[in-house]
Amino acid sequence: MVQPIVDVSPPKWHLGHTTWFFETFILSVYDNNYTVFNKDYNYVFNSYYETVGARVVRTDRGNLSRPTVAEVLAYRQYVDAAMESFLSKQETLDKALQGLLYLGFNHEQQHQELLITDIKYIFGNNPLLPAYDSSYKPYADEKNEEQDWITLAEGVYEIGANAEQLDFCFDNELNRHKVYLNSFSIAAREVTNAEYLAFINAGGYEDFRFWHSDGWEWVNTHQVKSPMYWHYIDNAWQHYTPKGLLPLALNEPVCHISYYEAYAYAAWAGKRLPTEAEWEVASNKFTWGRRWEWTESAYLPYPGFAKAAGAIGEYNGKFMINQMVLRGASQATSAGHSRNTYRNFFQPQLRWQFTGIRLAESI
Amino acid sequence: MVQPIVDVSPPKWHLGHTTWFFETFILSVYDNNYTVFNKDYNYVFNSYYETVGARVVRTDRGNLSRPTVAEVLAYRQYVDAAMESFLSKQETLDKALQGLLYLGFNHEQQHQELLITDIKYIFGNNPLLPAYDSSYKPYADEKNEEQDWITLAEGVYEIGANAEQLDFCFDNELNRHKVYLNSFSIAAREVTNAEYLAFINAGGYEDFRFWHSDGWEWVNTHQVKSPMYWHYIDNAWQHYTPKGLLPLALNEPVCHISYYEAYAYAAWAGKRLPTEAEWEVASNKFTWGRRWEWTESAYLPYPGFAKAAGAIGEYNGKFMINQMVLRGASQATSAGHSRNTYRNFFQPQLRWQFTGIRLAESI
Amino acid sequence: MVQPIVDVSPPKWHLGHTTWFFETFILSVYDNNYTVFNKDYNYVFNSYYETVGARVVRTDRGNLSRPTVAEVLAYRQYVDAAMESFLSKQETLDKALQGLLYLGFNHEQQHQELLITDIKYIFGNNPLLPAYDSSYKPYADEKNEEQDWITLAEGVYEIGANAEQLDFCFDNELNRHKVYLNSFSIAAREVTNAEYLAFINAGGYEDFRFWHSDGWEWVNTHQVKSPMYWHYIDNAWQHYTPKGLLPLALNEPVCHISYYEAYAYAAWAGKRLPTEAEWEVASNKFTWGRRWEWTESAYLPYPGFAKAAGAIGEYNGKFMINQMVLRGASQATSAGHSRNTYRNFFQPQLRWQFTGIRLAESI
Amino acid sequence: MVQPIVDVSPPKWHLGHTTWFFETFILSVYDNNYTVFNKDYNYVFNSYYETVGARVVRTDRGNLSRPTVAEVLAYRQYVDAAMESFLSKQETLDKALQGLLYLGFNHEQQHQELLITDIKYIFGNNPLLPAYDSSYKPYADEKNEEQDWITLAEGVYEIGANAEQLDFCFDNELNRHKVYLNSFSIAAREVTNAEYLAFINAGGYEDFRFWHSDGWEWVNTHQVKSPMYWHYIDNAWQHYTPKGLLPLALNEPVCHISYYEAYAYAAWAGKRLPTEAEWEVASNKFTWGRRWEWTESAYLPYPGFAKAAGAIGEYNGKFMINQMVLRGASQATSAGHSRNTYRNFFQPQLRWQFTGIRLAESI
Repeated sequence: MVQPIVDVSPPKWHLGHTTWFFETFILSVYDNNYTVFNKDYNYVFNSYYETVGARVVRTDRGNLSRPTVAEVLAYRQYVDAAMESFLSKQETLDKALQGLLYLGFNHEQQHQELLITDIKYIFGNNPLLPAYDSSYKPYADEKNEEQDWITLAEGVYEIGANAEQLDFCFDNELNRHKVYLNSFSIAAREVTNAEYLAFINAGGYEDFRFWHSDGWEWVNTHQVKSPMYWHYIDNAWQHYTPKGLLPLALNEPVCHISYYEAYAYAAWAGKRLPTEAEWEVASNKFTWGRRWEWTESAYLPYPGFAKAAGAIGEYNGKFMINQMVLRGASQATSAGHSRNTYRNFFQPQLRWQFTGIRLAESI
Repeated sequence: MVQPIVDVSPPKWHLGHTTWFFETFILSVYDNNYTVFNKDYNYVFNSYYETVGARVVRTDRGNLSRPTVAEVLAYRQYVDAAMESFLSKQETLDKALQGLLYLGFNHEQQHQELLITDIKYIFGNNPLLPAYDSSYKPYADEKNEEQDWITLAEGVYEIGANAEQLDFCFDNELNRHKVYLNSFSIAAREVTNAEYLAFINAGGYEDFRFWHSDGWEWVNTHQVKSPMYWHYIDNAWQHYTPKGLLPLALNEPVCHISYYEAYAYAAWAGKRLPTEAEWEVASNKFTWGRRWEWTESAYLPYPGFAKAAGAIGEYNGKFMINQMVLRGASQATSAGHSRNTYRNFFQPQLRWQFTGIRLAESI
Repeated sequence: MVQPIVDVSPPKWHLGHTTWFFETFILSVYDNNYTVFNKDYNYVFNSYYETVGARVVRTDRGNLSRPTVAEVLAYRQYVDAAMESFLSKQETLDKALQGLLYLGFNHEQQHQELLITDIKYIFGNNPLLPAYDSSYKPYADEKNEEQDWITLAEGVYEIGANAEQLDFCFDNELNRHKVYLNSFSIAAREVTNAEYLAFINAGGYEDFRFWHSDGWEWVNTHQVKSPMYWHYIDNAWQHYTPKGLLPLALNEPVCHISYYEAYAYAAWAGKRLPTEAEWEVASNKFTWGRRWEWTESAYLPYPGFAKAAGAIGEYNGKFMINQMVLRGASQATSAGHSRNTYRNFFQPQLRWQFTGIRLAESI
Repeated sequence: MVQPIVDVSPPKWHLGHTTWFFETFILSVYDNNYTVFNKDYNYVFNSYYETVGARVVRTDRGNLSRPTVAEVLAYRQYVDAAMESFLSKQETLDKALQGLLYLGFNHEQQHQELLITDIKYIFGNNPLLPAYDSSYKPYADEKNEEQDWITLAEGVYEIGANAEQLDFCFDNELNRHKVYLNSFSIAAREVTNAEYLAFINAGGYEDFRFWHSDGWEWVNTHQVKSPMYWHYIDNAWQHYTPKGLLPLALNEPVCHISYYEAYAYAAWAGKRLPTEAEWEVASNKFTWGRRWEWTESAYLPYPGFAKAAGAIGEYNGKFMINQMVLRGASQATSAGHSRNTYRNFFQPQLRWQFTGIRLAESI
């Protein structure tokens, strides 16, 4: 039930919140026979939907010793059963309801991913550094091959999702639209731990020239010296994994870095990060999905972006400020949840997600 | 396992910490056959003993999902068994060991009290306001009698503990020494909720004249309008109790107030708080023990105060700054743990303990 | 010499800093005969150039009672004379030196603008609300005309500066490049105070639906209820001007608002802010220059952006994160300093610049 | 006009505030013919008297570029002249008025002292470290004599001011009253820089055993390594003086230390600080007045302490929390302002006053 930083939610809360989503946006609206499990749960499991009610005592998610895990699981069973019963009675699903169902599924998949990243954070910041998956295996120790570069010519390209060809996409991926790109190259694979270590050993964290002004302040304020979960112990780099501390896997893609670090690494390497449009139009030419990849694009609305009406409209649009776009997917992303039009986004200092680097350059 | 504010520790942590105390200061030192249960627990359950080792990853007590409750209970059983085995082999106890044992018992009693106040805080700040003791009864609704006043004459008095007449006392109670007191009166009973309500209704929280400068800033910064756990709902005052929200018990002693509030109430009432010496010399003339009572005395060393050597010396002395003394005991204090020489202490803004007011005046 | 918030520098400091710029980047580098006026001034007047030396005692610009204004003016005269002497000896200026000179001039113009905005802030936050320009006149009270809309068709457009056709531009404006725009409309004039007042009166500051999540937190944390410098006194809106408090000029463009407010106003009006590309390609069809105009574009590098080498390279690139682009110019901008390719940028919460709103919409 | 930290006021403000004191509490009350110089000055020059009116725009003293120094001096002349005129017309002074006059004089003397300490702070934190008194001389470099100890026997003593024997004293010195002291010794002279240096060189700042828990956190948070104004440059200790940086004067009393440092030094030396009562009763047996001396006493009311009515009552009483008492006087104290009953007080972390150490011990 712990919440070590504001970005990390307690596992128990994820369970309750995804359940609450179905109860609040589907059952309470569409099923006349539905009785709310516990009306106070709205205070506890509403994440940020201002539309759906105020809270009298400020809710710190990390301090909720009640409801217990058993109560949350009972809540989940109750709502699952109600959903099954409700759905079994529908002959057809109207468009709006179908949209909410898909949103609920995708919302749940997003929280499944957060469950994994949050548990890693909770254990990786516990002084006992407990292991939680003895079957964990690093990526096969691939040879650290030379980087290949993929080149695209200048011109008009199309990006964004085509809603008509998909069962579901988020509103922030719409609509498919034209962009003009200058010619560029993009790397065929992500930057590895070994490559990132060269940046560290070259003094990259101590040289302001590679950093944004805000990034330099962040590095110095927090005394950042390496990616999150790296520990330098007895003259060797180790990193915290689901199996506990292990020697740093040199040929894995570097992970758990902030946008500031991704930018600084690229500057040091004489390259840059790709824009999200560059990434998307080139994405069918390289392998992706092992790590979320920071882009040089701020998270902003696409041309013609429109929020949905009501609480559901709070899903994406209101976060379109002070965040950078990540593309790809990670080992923690649910199968079937990723697309090359998918726009993930985080603030530039955050590191607890599986975030890495793919380089690009203008040519 | 939650820690909603820094002053409140997770119940699980109290269990582990009191166990660690016996392991670290007795078994590890005196029992050659003892094997430490888990050497990493020192990082987790050391509270503030700088002597006993550093911590590599900063330990936030509220984020420790490991060790689990079951593991902590196993730790406790292990240490309890080791203590029993060790003690059964001693024919006599040397003085130092006996002192540590008594300290360990009293330390445990202090944490038992904290367990109660911390659980109340954790539940009382949960938006569900869960009840946790259905057998809870308010103090019998005593008639709100007129206050009686006890008067003591000017002169030399003695305060402080006499170590030779006690099995145990804390170092901060030593030594028994003389003080000179001017004549004064002290109230025979604590201020009640009804009396405190009169202060609220008279605008006491909005009138700077009754407050310390720091207290006035505290009231305004935190928008304090009443004691902790009071809620004004539907035109009536309720307060959170172990049984959940109940109508305010008017004739109970007012509780969960800061030193700032105690001082302001006394100023509004045209009285003052007693000094700890006044309280102690008069304490055999009134009933006490229902609430810790704020005094006008800062927590400072008694004449000739000397810290014990080693880690145990960190127990009291290093907190003798920026804190005010409370005298008495509360409903949460273990039987046998209270004495009229006992010096409790908290920072002036804290309210999660059972803290109340007894008035005094100079005459 | 005051610095009421971190974004506002003392007027004296602006004088010294612009002088230091010429001394450090031109005289000390190009003039062998030049003797530095006072080597310690580097600690005092370096703004953010990490390349140019460390500082032993942290310099709070607002606390520098030394050097005095007289000393700073003497410094300025000394450097001015040295510059004149140096330049009079040059038969031709090499390209690099000429670039630095132009940069120095433009840098000085930027600080002239800051001098005006900073003095307004310093006086506008002084409880005496002193007037400082008795000749100040509001914009002629233009009739509040209906808004006209300018429409541009979908297609490829060019934006950015063409260095070869300009004596000077900043590196962040380079290079001229193609963008693809969907069809859109853009307003012919800025939003007025009267129009913004309608937003206030409609409860715009109290309705989360119009705000970014970060903006909503900003509004609530700082209890923002109106643009900066507006005061509601005796049932009427007034605003602080160089002439002191005056009745709100209803038909002036609204000013001193944050990006969050600009966005919320546009959302309430059912429109949006233009992107910087939209603004630039349409800019020859409307009047601009009375207020900096927030755009929906984050401040990011143009395709092929490259920082200059050395300290001068710290000018723009390192700020390309967490800021939004403003286009246009304000009443405080030096004549000759503005261009329709000019990219100004500030953090979304800042309001002390002359910042306003022009609406757009996708069609 | 600068205010580098909240405790340090701008010199200009001291001038205006002491003037405002006479205007507000004497002229505006007693002189019917008096016209307030500028009614808005109350917003600017009221320090903390909540009784005397609210402030619409928050006044940051360090940001007041208006009124100018010339305007403040004109204000001072105006009030001085009005005071002279008013007093010249009084044949006798009633008791209350006489009390206010004395309070005004003493208030002014306190601000004269603050002027000196604040200017030292302002210049001593300017990276130019400007000298401001070329005639400054360190204390004659006295031989660092062995410490002598003065011993007092156990018994009842009297402390506090006797109002009838004084033209003036502060309310916090009243009344003269009896205290019981155990026998103790007190040092005949203050701790010197040389002695304090031994503490530094012995690792005193790195050893938690000597520090309060709060002090240890303060040392580590602020990375304190020496008294304020000490700089270790080129392998030698220097300190900032009115004449600029000078080699550390080893035999001067150590100065500009916090209560935390005074306490830690005493703990390291195996002694303690005196209580204020011990200091006062022994004060006729040693020389004092070169430095304020931290005592082990918290700033609390004397028996029978009563605040004056009205705004004047805010002078002392409301600060009687979270502060420690200092006794003596410093080189910056006005002649005639010091008494051995005088109770100065500051928060334990403050260092900008001339604060030092005199040791004591229980015997």
